[in-house]
Amino acid sequence: MAITLVANTPHFEESFAAFLSTKREVSEDVDQTVRAILARVRSEGDRAVVEYTNRFDRNDFTAAGLAVTPDQIAEAVAGADQKTVEALTLARDRIAAHHARQMPADDRYVDPIGVELGSRWTAIESVGLYVPGGTASYPSSVLMNAVPAKVAGVERIVIVVPAPDGVLNPLVLVAAHLAGVSEIYRIGGAQAVAALAYGTETIRPVVKIVGPGNAYVAAAKRQVFGTVGIDMIAGPSEVLVIADGENDPDWIAADLLAQAEHDTAAQSIMITDDAAFGRSVEEAVTRQIATLPRAETAAASWRDYGAVIVVPDLEAAIPLANRIAAEHLELAFAEAEAFVPRIRNAGAIFIGRHTPEVIGDYVGGSNHVLPTARSARFSSGLSVLDFVKRTSLLKLGPEQLRTLAPAAIRLAEAEGLGAHARSVAIRLNL
Amino acid sequence: MAITLVANTPHFEESFAAFLSTKREVSEDVDQTVRAILARVRSEGDRAVVEYTNRFDRNDFTAAGLAVTPDQIAEAVAGADQKTVEALTLARDRIAAHHARQMPADDRYVDPIGVELGSRWTAIESVGLYVPGGTASYPSSVLMNAVPAKVAGVERIVIVVPAPDGVLNPLVLVAAHLAGVSEIYRIGGAQAVAALAYGTETIRPVVKIVGPGNAYVAAAKRQVFGTVGIDMIAGPSEVLVIADGENDPDWIAADLLAQAEHDTAAQSIMITDDAAFGRSVEEAVTRQIATLPRAETAAASWRDYGAVIVVPDLEAAIPLANRIAAEHLELAFAEAEAFVPRIRNAGAIFIGRHTPEVIGDYVGGSNHVLPTARSARFSSGLSVLDFVKRTSLLKLGPEQLRTLAPAAIRLAEAEGLGAHARSVAIRLNL
Repeated sequence: MAITLVANTPHFEESFAAFLSTKREVSEDVDQTVRAILARVRSEGDRAVVEYTNRFDRNDFTAAGLAVTPDQIAEAVAGADQKTVEALTLARDRIAAHHARQMPADDRYVDPIGVELGSRWTAIESVGLYVPGGTASYPSSVLMNAVPAKVAGVERIVIVVPAPDGVLNPLVLVAAHLAGVSEIYRIGGAQAVAALAYGTETIRPVVKIVGPGNAYVAAAKRQVFGTVGIDMIAGPSEVLVIADGENDPDWIAADLLAQAEHDTAAQSIMITDDAAFGRSVEEAVTRQIATLPRAETAAASWRDYGAVIVVPDLEAAIPLANRIAAEHLELAFAEAEAFVPRIRNAGAIFIGRHTPEVIGDYVGGSNHVLPTARSARFSSGLSVLDFVKRTSLLKLGPEQLRTLAPAAIRLAEAEGLGAHARSVAIRLNL
Repeated sequence: MAITLVANTPHFEESFAAFLSTKREVSEDVDQTVRAILARVRSEGDRAVVEYTNRFDRNDFTAAGLAVTPDQIAEAVAGADQKTVEALTLARDRIAAHHARQMPADDRYVDPIGVELGSRWTAIESVGLYVPGGTASYPSSVLMNAVPAKVAGVERIVIVVPAPDGVLNPLVLVAAHLAGVSEIYRIGGAQAVAALAYGTETIRPVVKIVGPGNAYVAAAKRQVFGTVGIDMIAGPSEVLVIADGENDPDWIAADLLAQAEHDTAAQSIMITDDAAFGRSVEEAVTRQIATLPRAETAAASWRDYGAVIVVPDLEAAIPLANRIAAEHLELAFAEAEAFVPRIRNAGAIFIGRHTPEVIGDYVGGSNHVLPTARSARFSSGLSVLDFVKRTSLLKLGPEQLRTLAPAAIRLAEAEGLGAHARSVAIRLNL
């Protein structure tokens, strides 16, 4: 049973603060194991990758068999359910259209004293995308990572995806194909991250690695950071639904369960100004769980981390929502739009009763890779910006240098940096 | 003596690749020590901060004495050299003007089927800025970190700066004052990072921590990441100067030494198409080192990591520069402007013979916090973007939901997520 917290009762603040600081993730200590795998792949290349892959994923690949062939991709596309291919195509097009608007503009200008300044954006040259195997092998996540990279102009996108017991989700290949990615290797775990970071005889290294993974993948990404760039390390997913009593309890229950079914460590929270409605939603959750294909996962998540918070009015939900800083925030009440400007911390806001968060997971167009575990206080969802980088430009002529030199020399001297001062002064014959 | 590599000679590629992969930083293993400090500050608050501060920095502060008072700030401003204050003011104004152009615009729009989408940017609520003590206590770095945060709209900026043996660089207080920061604590090391991340009785926690520090500070930032956001972990600084034979060797030597004097692990590289000019620069470096206040540091950096690379023509410098991906890149030749679009990887480009990198350190207006150690291949310098975060907005009415529902349900089912499918279907009475 989820916990219930009632605002304006004794100890609410303590209970809420404790709730906020609950850790949902047990971080396995896999650093040593991962370190050894990275070192072997770095020194032995393909040989180590093949050996780890065959051992951990129960494959019998050779180095030549690591790459998915064009025929295998074509076969996956031909064999896929046509309606699903159409749905993935719609998703791809909507993601591409939305992300195209995120492309930052270059800026080059001359300031009042004639100094030329600029910010110039360029795409990262190559990106590796980790795709998990097994049940979390989601084609939608392939699109959410690969399409923004394509939009950014990344020339080379490489997918790694393990094939445990030889099984590869064909829809992952379909999604890759739709995103325009054809370089795919059937490898996973820390060995795949190592191959992407250091390169092997078969796999050229990339410049940045993105995508979700298990504890080994996360640890490997942390360890190769610096050699390559990485994206954020995503934690378990969460949703906060703010709902008044005018909603259908079954709709809200379904939204809470859509989050809970992801992972036993996922978290679903509802804030409502109607305690009776809160109870109806809890009953609906219990009723719906029974019929879910992932009933056990959803039940464990709701039991361990679910929460219903009752507030005296919706106004009181705003500061709580900003402290929770949810990855996904649904505003399911009539005046939702008026609340949007007052929500400061959220990965994504789903506005109104007809915008279930699930639309954002698939076909809304916005990205479903969003900051988890309260990190929306300081970070953003995945976007085109994750696949570009900015170079500053500065250009002075002799006159501008003369104008700025005295201040630069003064500051260099104040900081005790004699060569800094000289590098400016020498150009003025000072 | 710096190494010399000559392109188009046997083994150049091997030597260059080895040169690229040279590690300049010895990472001390301080993780265990830092972990203990963080845990104690987290559980004991002020008491632990005061004890560590007095022990490591040889202070005798009480908790009440950690904060710098308004009087102390006023005293520092009143006592500062007026020309230096003016130089800092010029720097502040130029940094503010440049960074104001980086503020990202919100985007809210309706797509062809009536779905409302948006990206909304908000400032991070509070930021802690770490400022090192001792010789690396640079007022210019205070401005480079605090001014973009102010421009972004961060309401609360907190500076921590240790006062080893009671000594605090008054210009750090002046720079803070000019940047509009008045909440300053005389603490440093892992204990300061812990205080900012977890809060104490005296110091309210912040949401993100930025700024450079030693190995303890870097390890502490890595460990509190997740609880708070952090900026990049900066490594030792580097410059790449591409210069033809028409330059004054003394100008280029001064530029190389301006980088080398920072740190024995700093790196100065020159690429030239004129071997004789290269030798003249090396002679000038040797001559100039002798007269520098930080001669020993500069000499060690140049000896251990300095490099002169001779190429047949400047054209050949471009692929090398893109592989080096220098933090600072100077283009000291007449046709510099034409090369700019062809440089893909660099933190900042200084264009032409009259733009020494040092101008960018102080008064150019662009930021001097830039990606080091080849990370310009995948990351950018500090900017306003580091102090804001983006929230996605999505809003559907019943009609849009009806349009997108079939594809969303199809994908949810393909991924085996029954509650996802239901969350959409239930709203259509499917």
